[in-house]
Amino acid sequence: MKIADIGGEFAFIRRVAREYRDPAIVRGAGDDCAAIDHPPSRLLLLTTDMMVENTHFTRDWFTPRQIGRKLMEVNVSDIVSMGGVPRHAVISLAMPPDTTIEFMDELYRGLYESAEAHGVALVGGDTTRGRELTLNLALTGEVEPELVRYRSGALPGDCICVTGTLGKNEAGLRLLMAGKPGYTQGFLEPRARRADEGRVIARYAHAMIDVSDGLASEVRHICEQSGAGAIIECDAIPISAETRDAAAAVGSDPSAYALYGGEDFELVFTAERGAIDTLRSVFQDFTIVGEILSPDGGIRLRKGERLVELDQGFDHFAKT
Amino acid sequence: MKIADIGGEFAFIRRVAREYRDPAIVRGAGDDCAAIDHPPSRLLLLTTDMMVENTHFTRDWFTPRQIGRKLMEVNVSDIVSMGGVPRHAVISLAMPPDTTIEFMDELYRGLYESAEAHGVALVGGDTTRGRELTLNLALTGEVEPELVRYRSGALPGDCICVTGTLGKNEAGLRLLMAGKPGYTQGFLEPRARRADEGRVIARYAHAMIDVSDGLASEVRHICEQSGAGAIIECDAIPISAETRDAAAAVGSDPSAYALYGGEDFELVFTAERGAIDTLRSVFQDFTIVGEILSPDGGIRLRKGERLVELDQGFDHFAKT
Repeated sequence: MKIADIGGEFAFIRRVAREYRDPAIVRGAGDDCAAIDHPPSRLLLLTTDMMVENTHFTRDWFTPRQIGRKLMEVNVSDIVSMGGVPRHAVISLAMPPDTTIEFMDELYRGLYESAEAHGVALVGGDTTRGRELTLNLALTGEVEPELVRYRSGALPGDCICVTGTLGKNEAGLRLLMAGKPGYTQGFLEPRARRADEGRVIARYAHAMIDVSDGLASEVRHICEQSGAGAIIECDAIPISAETRDAAAAVGSDPSAYALYGGEDFELVFTAERGAIDTLRSVFQDFTIVGEILSPDGGIRLRKGERLVELDQGFDHFAKT
Repeated sequence: MKIADIGGEFAFIRRVAREYRDPAIVRGAGDDCAAIDHPPSRLLLLTTDMMVENTHFTRDWFTPRQIGRKLMEVNVSDIVSMGGVPRHAVISLAMPPDTTIEFMDELYRGLYESAEAHGVALVGGDTTRGRELTLNLALTGEVEPELVRYRSGALPGDCICVTGTLGKNEAGLRLLMAGKPGYTQGFLEPRARRADEGRVIARYAHAMIDVSDGLASEVRHICEQSGAGAIIECDAIPISAETRDAAAAVGSDPSAYALYGGEDFELVFTAERGAIDTLRSVFQDFTIVGEILSPDGGIRLRKGERLVELDQGFDHFAKT
């Protein structure tokens, strides 16, 4: 059934909109804007991410539910990486005219599942037509001024740490491209870290960022904005057995997936060694992968005996 | 010159990003999120609007500067129609690979011109690839809890008023479609009302909305959400001489442009007759076009001797 068959744009919005009992929502979907009661002692965080069919997903690989989930996770990850709590979102959709209501119902099912898991309320949006399915989410968050963490806070001597494992997104993509079986969830169902995890880390971290373009790119961002150098120990990068198997299956190096791959949505943070020991007593799922240096130390990767420049990560418009 | 030629996505972002001296911006573009110091006694407003090439604009008709302007005006209008002051925006862009940097520079020129005129700061965004140029803006605003105006506040006996003139957007579109000369600025360069105008009106209004889908659709929204009826006097609808000329040139009825046309971004508001007289002493650019009735009065249009149902406005997915 097409969107037009249920009565068009306004009928579609009524169908997918939800009521929330969040007392902060003074006015949700259905007016010109959402109106939110923002808590006085918290910074407002604001982020946005767009997903375009055939650039970020294809319908051959992704179920609509996975597309909806990913849209939410991508944005939540940005809030979590600042030490924040994700709160309220507005969605924009450009849909091809042949989009079915069944497809959109499933997409919204995924979106709401992920929103609920992270405590996010959808408070409005915009629905229109386009040749390609294009989704945009803008998401707010809240954070105490003393807990907000930027890319710019890293200090020489800090350990560089990453949560979970890296490379799983790229591994899944490569398996799908090669048409080989294996673990593809890291690509099809990426998960942002939970806000409570990000906030425990934020208490001990100097700088924090999420992994959207690979570890190399994120470490470079931290170094550039902190005015620092860094060394990454390639052998220390946490890579799961599934990711290693996938890399073996398609004949590539799993550490390249971790360094230059895509949206793993793990957190990269820097902290003093002493703080890290304290953090470890309350949160264990992270690994030390390197160290922040003074700026003249450069930004390098140690791989076995070799010390090389840490290349830049993925760039949508880079020349190849 | 292509985006790739200047060094890709990150180089493009550095090129277009601006620094602001707004003390509320604790962190602007360049981190995972923007971090904003939101004033404690104001509601946070949040809106988003997407513009897709060939749905909302074509490069044949619009200059890139006009596209950038429109993206900002569309969103500002939503904040203004709630009685708010627009504040901080994040932009998402999907660009075809052949997009030139000259085109994007012009688009950003328009975007920044309009942002500056309305006091908006651009604090971040997301840049990616797509087959069609697709733009999304998410915009925050601030409003005193006692000044926020919804669609739902209209009371029977209220006058229904509109600012400026209506139909100019549709008139411009029709002239361009017919390839005829005339006034097309209402379509190519729509302008949101200024926040100070919206806020003066808000002091006296019970309900307010902006004109995005034509007067008929906006009055219907107010009636549905206020649990009220309405009568619109067709002859009272303010239509400019330019719009009348355009309608005459393409052989159509200019009041249809006003009622069922598109994005005029004027304000529709309802207020008691006494309040309207007081408002008129400080703001004059509005016209009374009808009256709010009890719900059993229906939602009607008086056109000469005839009383007809007020049809719904434009709907992107309506069957025709």
